[in-house]
Amino acid sequence: MTLPRVLIIGAGLIGTSVALALREHGGEVWLSDPDPATAQLAADMGAGVVVPDLRDAKGIADIALLAMPPAFVATGLAHAQECAVADVYTDVASVKSLPAQQARAAGCDLEAFVPGHPLAGREKHGPAAARADLFLGRTWALCPLPENAPAAVDAVTDLVVACGADPVRVDAATHDQWVALVSHAPHLVSVAMAARLAGPSAPAEALRLAGQGLRDVTRIAAGDPELWAQIVAANAAPVAQILQAVADDLAATARALASGAAGDTDDTVARLLDQGRAGVARIPGKHGGKPPEFTVVQVVIADQPGELARLFAAAGAASVNIEDIRIEHSPGLPVGVAELSVRPGEVARLLDAMDAGGWPVRR
Amino acid sequence: MTLPRVLIIGAGLIGTSVALALREHGGEVWLSDPDPATAQLAADMGAGVVVPDLRDAKGIADIALLAMPPAFVATGLAHAQECAVADVYTDVASVKSLPAQQARAAGCDLEAFVPGHPLAGREKHGPAAARADLFLGRTWALCPLPENAPAAVDAVTDLVVACGADPVRVDAATHDQWVALVSHAPHLVSVAMAARLAGPSAPAEALRLAGQGLRDVTRIAAGDPELWAQIVAANAAPVAQILQAVADDLAATARALASGAAGDTDDTVARLLDQGRAGVARIPGKHGGKPPEFTVVQVVIADQPGELARLFAAAGAASVNIEDIRIEHSPGLPVGVAELSVRPGEVARLLDAMDAGGWPVRR
Repeated sequence: MTLPRVLIIGAGLIGTSVALALREHGGEVWLSDPDPATAQLAADMGAGVVVPDLRDAKGIADIALLAMPPAFVATGLAHAQECAVADVYTDVASVKSLPAQQARAAGCDLEAFVPGHPLAGREKHGPAAARADLFLGRTWALCPLPENAPAAVDAVTDLVVACGADPVRVDAATHDQWVALVSHAPHLVSVAMAARLAGPSAPAEALRLAGQGLRDVTRIAAGDPELWAQIVAANAAPVAQILQAVADDLAATARALASGAAGDTDDTVARLLDQGRAGVARIPGKHGGKPPEFTVVQVVIADQPGELARLFAAAGAASVNIEDIRIEHSPGLPVGVAELSVRPGEVARLLDAMDAGGWPVRR
Repeated sequence: MTLPRVLIIGAGLIGTSVALALREHGGEVWLSDPDPATAQLAADMGAGVVVPDLRDAKGIADIALLAMPPAFVATGLAHAQECAVADVYTDVASVKSLPAQQARAAGCDLEAFVPGHPLAGREKHGPAAARADLFLGRTWALCPLPENAPAAVDAVTDLVVACGADPVRVDAATHDQWVALVSHAPHLVSVAMAARLAGPSAPAEALRLAGQGLRDVTRIAAGDPELWAQIVAANAAPVAQILQAVADDLAATARALASGAAGDTDDTVARLLDQGRAGVARIPGKHGGKPPEFTVVQVVIADQPGELARLFAAAGAASVNIEDIRIEHSPGLPVGVAELSVRPGEVARLLDAMDAGGWPVRR
C-alpha cells in the first residue's frame, strides 16, 4: 500500500501520534498547529515537516487530518478547504453529529470530509506524549456522511489501517449514542457524586474516611469543567437520555431504602446491584473483569528470586499456557499469592503441576 | 507493647489482613471461617492457625475480631460469646448502628463488645488479596457503646494501633452518615451507571469504545451484590438521602441538556461541573501505607507456553526479584508486553538479563 501524503492540523497527542505512526512506515507528513512551538516539538520528534501557514500549502497533501476539539472542527475544515490543502479531509473529534451539521451549514465540501474518531488516548496531552503505537489494535470509528465520495471514504479507511487501528463504520448518531454511554454520561455521574462532597453536609472528618472506591468513582470529576460543558452540550440528547435513566434508578433505590424495614434487603436494590455487576463485566479487556473463558487458580508462592521461574517452568513443562497473572503480596511477608489465568481445559494439568511442585493451590 | 492473642472470625480480605499485620509482629493469631478452604488458604499464607470449631476454642484469645458483613455481626457475636472464645470482642462491619442494636436485642454482652470499622479495603475479596499493610496510616473508626467496659475499649484501641491504623472515636449514627457519603452512596452511583451497560441499549460494539474513565467510575460496581445489598439496607436512611440528591442533580442536568439549543452550554451543567470539581478536591491525599516505589520495565514476549518461564528464569538467575507483573496483550497478536515491577536498584540487572535473553525491553 502506498502511503498518502498527510497534513496534520493540530499537533497534539492524537495528531502527532498519527504522524509518528505514518512516519514509522516512511510516509510523508506535514504538521500545522496554531502554536508554532507545539508544531516544532512534533517535528523535532520526527513527526514530519512544519507548515507555518495553511494559505501557503495548497495541494500539499492527499489527506488533511483535523485533530482539534469538536467545537473547532467546522471552522477548521472550512479554512483548510479554503486553502485547498488536500483532496480528502477527516477529523478525530469525540462527537460526530454536531460538527458535521455545522460543517454542512458552513458550506464545507462534504463530499471530501469523512468524520472519524480514534478510541485511543492517554492521560497526558501534547506532542511529547505521542506514540507511534497509540492506535495499534484500537477501534477507530468512521462515520461517513451521505455526501461522501466513496473514494474519500476508502482513502480515510486506508489511513486508519496504516495507523494500525481497526476501522469500525457507524453512523454519526449511533456513534454519539455510544460515546454518551461510555464516556459523557459517566463523566456527569462522577461529577454528581463528587458534588455531594462540596457542601456543608460533607464535613472534613467524613472525608478522612474516603477510600479508594470514592477516589475512583470521582476521579474524572476533576476534569476541566469548561471543556466538559462543551462536550456534553455537543452531545446533549443522548447524554440526557442516559442521565435520566441513572437518575430514575437512583431515585427508585432511595425510595426503596427509605421505605424498607431497617436491615431488610429490597428487590429494587438487589436487582440494580446485579445489573450493575453484569454491566461492568461487559466492559472488554483485562480491567473490566476476567474474561469468562479463563479460570483463575491461586497459588501461594515464596517471595524470592527464582520462585516464579520455578513455577512457570513447571507450568510450561505441563504445556499449560498462562494467559495472565496477577501477584498479590503484602510487603514484608515471605509469601505472595499468584493468580494464574488459564483456559479451563488446562486447569487440571496446572493443578497437578503445582501440586507436584509443592505449591499450595486454590482454584 | 505485648500483642494480644487474637481470634479472627471470618478469614476474608479484612480478617486475614488483620491477621497478617499481627503476625508480622509475632502475634499469636487463630483463624476461623465457615469455609474451611478459605481458612486454610489464610493459614498457608502464614496468617495463623486454623480453629475448626469455635465450640472447641474456649478462652483461646484475648480479643475476637468478627470480620463479616453487618447482618451477621449480632449472631456471630452471640455464638462467639456463647463459646467464650475471648475476653473482648470487636467487629469490622462498615455499618455501626444497626448491628449494635441487633446485638443488644440478642442479649449479647455489650460490656465486652467494642464496634469498629477500618477504612481500608480493596475491590478484591478473600484471603488471597489480604495484605499486612492494608491498615497502615488508615483511619479505623471505633464506636464505643454506652455499655462498654473502659478496659475493653482500650484493648481494641491497642489492637487497631498494632495494625498500624489511626483510631478515630465517633458515635455510631455519625459514623453511619459519614460512610453513607464516602462509601455506600458512591457504590450505588457506580452501580447505577454500570447498570446502563447491561441492557440492550448497550451493544457490545459500544462497549468496545470504553476508556479508562468508564472503567474507574464503574470499577466498584463489580463488588459482591449480596454483600452490598446487606450493607446499604443496614444503613438505609443516610444512603437514601444522598442518592436522592444525586438523582435530583442528574435529572436536572438531563432536563437542561434536553432543553438547550444544540451546542449551547447551560448554567445548570456548568454549575454542577464546578461543584463536582470542588468536591473531588476536598478528598484528602492518601494517608501513609504507600507501597515501596517500584520501577516498571516493559518486555515484549512471545505468547506461547514456556516463554514466561524462560523470562523468569533469566530474571532469577540475575537475582532480580520481580515484585509484580502485568501482561498486556491484544487478542490475536503473537506477542504481548509484560510489565515487570522491580526495585529501582535491580533495574540495571534486569535490563541486562532481558537483553542477554534477546527480549526487546523498554524502561
